[in-house]
Amino acid sequence: MTPRLARLVPILDWGRRYNRAALQNDLLAAVIVTIMLIPQSLAYAMLAGLPPEAGIYASILPIILYAIFGTSRALAVGPVAVISLMTAAAVGEVAQQGTAGYAAAALTLALLSGLFLLVLGIFRLGFIANFLSHPVIAGFITASGILIATSQLKHILGVRAGGDTLPEMLGSLLANLGQVNPITLAIGVAATALLFWARKGLKPALIRAGLGEGLATIATRAGPVAAVVVTTLAVWGFGLEARGVSIVGRVPQSLPPLTKPDLSFDLVRALAMPAILISIIGFVESISVAQTLAARRRQRIDPDQELIGLGMANIGAGLTGGYPVTGGFARSVVNFDAGAETPAAGAFTAIGLAIAALALTPLVYYLPQATLAATIIVAVLSLVDFGILRRAWAYSRADFAAVAGTILLTLLLGVETGVSAGVILSVLLHLYHTSRPHIAEVGLVPGTQHFRNIRRHEVRTHPELLTMRLDESLYFANARFLEDKVLDRVSDDKAIRHVVLMFPAVNAVDLSALETLEALNERLGEMGVTLHLSEVKGPVMDRLGRSRFLDHLSGQVFLSQWDAIETLTPTVCGGGAVTTRDAAAP
Amino acid sequence: MTPRLARLVPILDWGRRYNRAALQNDLLAAVIVTIMLIPQSLAYAMLAGLPPEAGIYASILPIILYAIFGTSRALAVGPVAVISLMTAAAVGEVAQQGTAGYAAAALTLALLSGLFLLVLGIFRLGFIANFLSHPVIAGFITASGILIATSQLKHILGVRAGGDTLPEMLGSLLANLGQVNPITLAIGVAATALLFWARKGLKPALIRAGLGEGLATIATRAGPVAAVVVTTLAVWGFGLEARGVSIVGRVPQSLPPLTKPDLSFDLVRALAMPAILISIIGFVESISVAQTLAARRRQRIDPDQELIGLGMANIGAGLTGGYPVTGGFARSVVNFDAGAETPAAGAFTAIGLAIAALALTPLVYYLPQATLAATIIVAVLSLVDFGILRRAWAYSRADFAAVAGTILLTLLLGVETGVSAGVILSVLLHLYHTSRPHIAEVGLVPGTQHFRNIRRHEVRTHPELLTMRLDESLYFANARFLEDKVLDRVSDDKAIRHVVLMFPAVNAVDLSALETLEALNERLGEMGVTLHLSEVKGPVMDRLGRSRFLDHLSGQVFLSQWDAIETLTPTVCGGGAVTTRDAAAP
Repeated sequence: MTPRLARLVPILDWGRRYNRAALQNDLLAAVIVTIMLIPQSLAYAMLAGLPPEAGIYASILPIILYAIFGTSRALAVGPVAVISLMTAAAVGEVAQQGTAGYAAAALTLALLSGLFLLVLGIFRLGFIANFLSHPVIAGFITASGILIATSQLKHILGVRAGGDTLPEMLGSLLANLGQVNPITLAIGVAATALLFWARKGLKPALIRAGLGEGLATIATRAGPVAAVVVTTLAVWGFGLEARGVSIVGRVPQSLPPLTKPDLSFDLVRALAMPAILISIIGFVESISVAQTLAARRRQRIDPDQELIGLGMANIGAGLTGGYPVTGGFARSVVNFDAGAETPAAGAFTAIGLAIAALALTPLVYYLPQATLAATIIVAVLSLVDFGILRRAWAYSRADFAAVAGTILLTLLLGVETGVSAGVILSVLLHLYHTSRPHIAEVGLVPGTQHFRNIRRHEVRTHPELLTMRLDESLYFANARFLEDKVLDRVSDDKAIRHVVLMFPAVNAVDLSALETLEALNERLGEMGVTLHLSEVKGPVMDRLGRSRFLDHLSGQVFLSQWDAIETLTPTVCGGGAVTTRDAAAP
Repeated sequence: MTPRLARLVPILDWGRRYNRAALQNDLLAAVIVTIMLIPQSLAYAMLAGLPPEAGIYASILPIILYAIFGTSRALAVGPVAVISLMTAAAVGEVAQQGTAGYAAAALTLALLSGLFLLVLGIFRLGFIANFLSHPVIAGFITASGILIATSQLKHILGVRAGGDTLPEMLGSLLANLGQVNPITLAIGVAATALLFWARKGLKPALIRAGLGEGLATIATRAGPVAAVVVTTLAVWGFGLEARGVSIVGRVPQSLPPLTKPDLSFDLVRALAMPAILISIIGFVESISVAQTLAARRRQRIDPDQELIGLGMANIGAGLTGGYPVTGGFARSVVNFDAGAETPAAGAFTAIGLAIAALALTPLVYYLPQATLAATIIVAVLSLVDFGILRRAWAYSRADFAAVAGTILLTLLLGVETGVSAGVILSVLLHLYHTSRPHIAEVGLVPGTQHFRNIRRHEVRTHPELLTMRLDESLYFANARFLEDKVLDRVSDDKAIRHVVLMFPAVNAVDLSALETLEALNERLGEMGVTLHLSEVKGPVMDRLGRSRFLDHLSGQVFLSQWDAIETLTPTVCGGGAVTTRDAAAP
């Protein structure tokens, strides 16, 4: 077995060292995760607009494939809330919910997403995910949480409603408010209240009752199961189905079916962009969970290999009746806390779910949809974090604009437009920010060889010498800004004979900036002013050497600014006819 | 008169100081430019797919409005080659060449472009043009030159042909090659040869004949006029029109008409994006000409005021039967060389062209279109500069990719797609480049307080201390890269207890990077490793102070890296149990 093969198929690495202790830990974790996943899978399938079994199918083969190809020891792959919402938005564009075409399009979406992730992984392009800035992710997740919770209100109220954006959803809910089913509402509110209490109050209560911290945490996670059992029994016992309470109904008793996604040109074209967005959002969510868990055991995960693992999982979902999946936060943390040691825990979970799919689906016949909606609402409200707005505002206005813009655009225009606009917005804000770099005119601090901003310090300058320090790399978006600053100063002050650009913080000069420097050199030359550089970093100097710029430069390149003023205006160093400027308020 | 008003309407400034000497210089320049502009205006109108008079109309009111609102003393505004091609591409999408709707759409395009420029100028958003990198501009101009020259071959050959991209144009030409008109071809080839000779051979010949350098230059620029006169006389004298030679035909004898552009919603929506691209390309072209000429007289132009001047000029073009205009290189240089001192020269040129429009248009009745095509071909071939490919390759692969990508996409997909794709490409390349910053692991140079890359220098390190220097600002696209590098090193080397990040070249840390640093701090904490910073710049430190990061930081922020190792690993400074690494090849 070559190391390369082991890297591509990590199971070959950890599988050889597998032992009885790991097996026991993994089995226990699998049982706990399986119990938690059954209601969650049904709920997320409902959120995605798919039949409930799709959620279970999407948790079986994908988990096994991730266990083989993924690098995280504890990540649990399957349907998650945000990806389910994005699936509903994307598939809703090409088919009607409840039709065979809708479920088929979800398979295509999963397959496309899997192929895209696989390609990114094979070509080691995982860095693409870095272009989703934190403000965009945070804003998107918060807005998605609001959209998801709002989309589930219809199940709590027992009305029909639709919409992909917040105004559409609220409008549709208001228009149908007359049809509220009071029994459904009672079940929904009771389940929501129970689940909130299970989150907040149950754990302290269990600990007071003598349970250990870890066990109490795990028991708390079983809250949804309790809500499912109680409300299912209520519907069954009181015949509430006949009173208009929507229930899950018949779920086929079957292992995941082999499915062949429709790859017709029109469908692929319509779903390609959503598949890319789903892949990237899913990857970002998954990798951050995986990295958090890996760090706790000083393990590392390989982002490019993660792409391959998630890609295979999604291809698996597309071929076995599922829909797009990724590593989920809640399920992974439960898996980790329950003691999962290797990806085998995931494989055992898959077996547990397969048994559930074969044997337990009749038990959820009377499960009210309002209970599933309640589990979704309680789960996603933890995603909503308006605190990010406050923190971003305190830190920088540009980051605040990116967060607020992404939240608003996602709520008002839907998930795909929201996240795309957010990415564009954060790139533009970054370019705008670096396009107006800090440029300081500097002078010599008397008695030293240090140079400081003339607006902040009392420094010595010479009327014939203009020295400007640039605190940013020079590239196309800011080169002209520097040129304008220099030409403005030189045109205003006819005494200037030499311009020195200090480059100690310039890490790169691209071709646009090089051409701007050449133009600046030429224009200054026509004004009778020489251009010099000082404190140019090695790599930048190497690159300038590859062009004709240094041949054309009217002045010199000085190793240090001190060299520059010693050469150009010796009186400043010695103390002759110079100006000492007082520090003026900036 | 307030200074602010004078800034907004520069004519109020230079107009007060106008005198007889300036008047004489301006009048002479105007006569020369007018003679040059008549054939050029007709030719560019043909390139734009418009009737010949549109080119003249587009040179009259726009020049006057620019003279009032613009800041350049020598810029000559009017139709230019690249903008004419972009107009043909944009208007061709919404109307058929030769119809009234086509000319009307060109008016709308000019008005929209003018309004966009005006808005940019009023809100001082001229920096937007900086996002067109030099590689994109250079690639776009070269590709446009090729497209323009190819588009004119049909007039030289005397065949009908069309297409917006190079393959379409060549395909269409080949398909119609059977219809070549030999007389047209003869005129076209002769005119092209004459014009090439006028460019290359005429000036030396005139100087040898005793003309001064300046006069010879100006006379050379009159080459197109000579070609026009000779070929017009030939067509008239030999009755070549009857032999199938396409001629300009009747041009109305009229001042520019007042026109009301069609602002119907569908047309505006269809032309909005092209208008934005035309505005930005036109602005970039114009401003670079204006800056070049201004520098020669140590004058400054105000880019935001230039936007207003060009915006008014385009609005004027839209209201008087023209089409989008900008400051042209050739005409501005002629204007400058002929001695224009103030924008009044432009106004006099406008008067000259108005006289021409009223009185001289019958003279161009027999002017062959092949001659106009020849003047265009000879003019634009000077735009084609494949040398940029070589220079970009030598300088950096990313810049080369941007140039080559823009050239190819423009040739294959047309001007709008080409320039848009070029902009996106250069932004992505910039982000990609900065997303993989240079990160050096550093150690102490023995006997100094300097720290250098352990892979390039013989330095002292300590097994418990990892110091990494980041040579780039930290932002969303590269923060995770740093995190990965650090976590990889720490996971591989279990001896590490302290990580110090050296920030002397970090000019900014955005919110994404801050959150990544917080995550890194937390993950290192879980591994039992403390995180420190050193040599953090003032503005970055100020900003970090606005977050909770410094409170959570497990280690310290050191003023200098020397402080850091003195505190963390005093043995390294003193000379105790440390490792001295040999410089390994990078």
